Amino acid sequence: MQASVINVGSELLSGQTTNTNLSYIARRLRRLGIVIARSTTVSDTEAAIHEALAMVQEDVLIITGGLGPSRDDITKESLASFFGWRLVKDERVFEAIRRYFESRGRTMRETNEKQARFPPGATVLKNQRGTAPGMVVEHGGRTIVALPGPPGELKGMFPQVEALLKKRRDDVPYQDGFLLVGRGESEFESDLQDLYTEHPDVELAPYASLGEIRYILLSHSKESLKQAKEAFRERLHKDILGRADDTLEGLLVAGLRQRSASVAFAESCTGGLVASRVVDVPGASDVFEEGYVLYSNASKSRRLGVSPQVLENYGAVSEQCAYEMAYLLQRKARTDYALSVTGIAGPEGGSEKKPVGTVYFGLAKAETTRTFHRIFSGDRQMIRRKASAYALSLLIRELQRHEA
Amino acid sequence: MQASVINVGSELLSGQTTNTNLSYIARRLRRLGIVIARSTTVSDTEAAIHEALAMVQEDVLIITGGLGPSRDDITKESLASFFGWRLVKDERVFEAIRRYFESRGRTMRETNEKQARFPPGATVLKNQRGTAPGMVVEHGGRTIVALPGPPGELKGMFPQVEALLKKRRDDVPYQDGFLLVGRGESEFESDLQDLYTEHPDVELAPYASLGEIRYILLSHSKESLKQAKEAFRERLHKDILGRADDTLEGLLVAGLRQRSASVAFAESCTGGLVASRVVDVPGASDVFEEGYVLYSNASKSRRLGVSPQVLENYGAVSEQCAYEMAYLLQRKARTDYALSVTGIAGPEGGSEKKPVGTVYFGLAKAETTRTFHRIFSGDRQMIRRKASAYALSLLIRELQRHEA
Repeated sequence: MQASVINVGSELLSGQTTNTNLSYIARRLRRLGIVIARSTTVSDTEAAIHEALAMVQEDVLIITGGLGPSRDDITKESLASFFGWRLVKDERVFEAIRRYFESRGRTMRETNEKQARFPPGATVLKNQRGTAPGMVVEHGGRTIVALPGPPGELKGMFPQVEALLKKRRDDVPYQDGFLLVGRGESEFESDLQDLYTEHPDVELAPYASLGEIRYILLSHSKESLKQAKEAFRERLHKDILGRADDTLEGLLVAGLRQRSASVAFAESCTGGLVASRVVDVPGASDVFEEGYVLYSNASKSRRLGVSPQVLENYGAVSEQCAYEMAYLLQRKARTDYALSVTGIAGPEGGSEKKPVGTVYFGLAKAETTRTFHRIFSGDRQMIRRKASAYALSLLIRELQRHEA
Repeated sequence: MQASVINVGSELLSGQTTNTNLSYIARRLRRLGIVIARSTTVSDTEAAIHEALAMVQEDVLIITGGLGPSRDDITKESLASFFGWRLVKDERVFEAIRRYFESRGRTMRETNEKQARFPPGATVLKNQRGTAPGMVVEHGGRTIVALPGPPGELKGMFPQVEALLKKRRDDVPYQDGFLLVGRGESEFESDLQDLYTEHPDVELAPYASLGEIRYILLSHSKESLKQAKEAFRERLHKDILGRADDTLEGLLVAGLRQRSASVAFAESCTGGLVASRVVDVPGASDVFEEGYVLYSNASKSRRLGVSPQVLENYGAVSEQCAYEMAYLLQRKARTDYALSVTGIAGPEGGSEKKPVGTVYFGLAKAETTRTFHRIFSGDRQMIRRKASAYALSLLIRELQRHEA
């Protein structure tokens, strides 16, 4: 099944906003076995919206943006004029919008009334993060979905869309997925090559971001999916950290919390990025108390006591330095685990022996300290981001090792 | 003048990649006075590309992606079949691609040959970050620009596009812009309201991101632009930190370096994000040695000596705590400046007196320590990002105050 997406919003065409809705919608639809065949971005004018609508040939149309209360917001009105719908005020929705304002100590404006108007027969989608409800309309054998543009609101409402699409279709594939860290996409792909041929009725969709990759497996046969998952696990179990919906920081916080354990970080090239990712998780304070950003050599000695000999003989970017940073941090912070990162993010500072992208990691607990070493590709930001993902993965793996 | 953008790439429609090229191109074209009227994203098939090409009515067409060496890369071939061009091998370009491989110790594959084929009369755009050259072709009164999809390559080549577009047009507006931090977009907009009416021949384009906002001013009259810029500065000089092309972290590192000064950070709710942003700047080591992530109350006392009375009487999220963190850090790290951040990022932890989003900042130097206080809106990630921008802005402003 195919879908078309129309993103309405002059701010998308002026560059004021980057369109993150399309890739989100694409990833979610893919899991329902729906592929986006085309996507158009248009400004908030009736003519532009009509022109885009005239191109749609797909079974599902998702149109985003233009559901606000202002005069510029004309998506519903443009759909109505294009398809010949009459928009009628839905009193229950109107009341819900009024209450949304009331609960925030604000008064509803008159212009908000139009947000409660829908074509008869529309299924209204509730919006808990804003005033603009969405809607689903069946028209001429096509499912038309209208959603607000702000990504937070759209994401909050998407489960309602998924539930409706699932209900109306009998060919939703079975699906599952994995989160992997450790190697590059091309390496995984070559490991999976025969899996693609051995399981022709299973679709594998890789979604790579910096330092991590998610694979979604889709099949219309439950048994095929199960076999493919087993084969996938067999080949890549060393690299699998969680399910496709997991985040590294979420897995780490949950894993530590489960065993009432704590962690501290000592970061050089990542410069606080590892700690910041962990703090992104609500409730991180249960497992994380403190971190150090030790960017200069002197600070590594001063704060943790890394020996000057190590810095002199091996340099700050070395296995020995990563070892000492983690070992000494674990003693100083008195945490169950201590993680260190030291590397060359570039663009300067590389050498033939230690090229830009070289990063050493230390992972200490009371009994043992181990070190790890990777060379990451990309620019400074990419290398730092990949290193932070790898650092998180090391401790997640350590926690999982003891589970098994 | 209007432009149309076609992004070619199945990875954009499957959600494997988020399209950041469109907003980048939009921002750059806007500065040349060119507005994007529509944008289409299509898969790598000739039929889909032709269908999108048939819709183009604008003077400028920018098409991205599909210039690689693989069989899936068919953008140039699809343009050629649509417009009736013949693609001819350009020996000099072919040689350049061969050298690109050679310089990286790799051998050019046969499939790369097609990357050197262009319609006669095309201006070839050099790509220093990859093998795919771009091109500009004038056809039927329209300027057609083809660029590779990887954002790094596209951005690296865009100055060549700008130079060509400028040369071919006599109505490029004068432009300049500012980077502002301190208040929300709506507050700035109301301050600028009369500027919009007093300078009708100057266009103001705001580009907001989390905690910072950039304004681009455009006019076809040099004198009007100058006057509007002066009026803009007069109204918002307290909030202006730099030019539109500046970044906060870049301004901070440059400002500190200029006066051979150093900084240290003590972060609670931002959790290392401030330090990490500074480390994003190559050469940050000239001005930054170390930072602390002090997430728990105990760590604030243990590492910096924040007094237990302050934590007990006022809490960790307080002016007093921010003051002590900055004051004590400056003494401990012996830097010229020390910056502290402590706040409630949510979703839990807010109270009536200190709602979620409340953040206190401390800025210490040898002689004085000052504190600042803001309430940011948004979710946990947004609050943390805005707080990091505000923290950076405090020190930039301090450095600029002494310049003036």
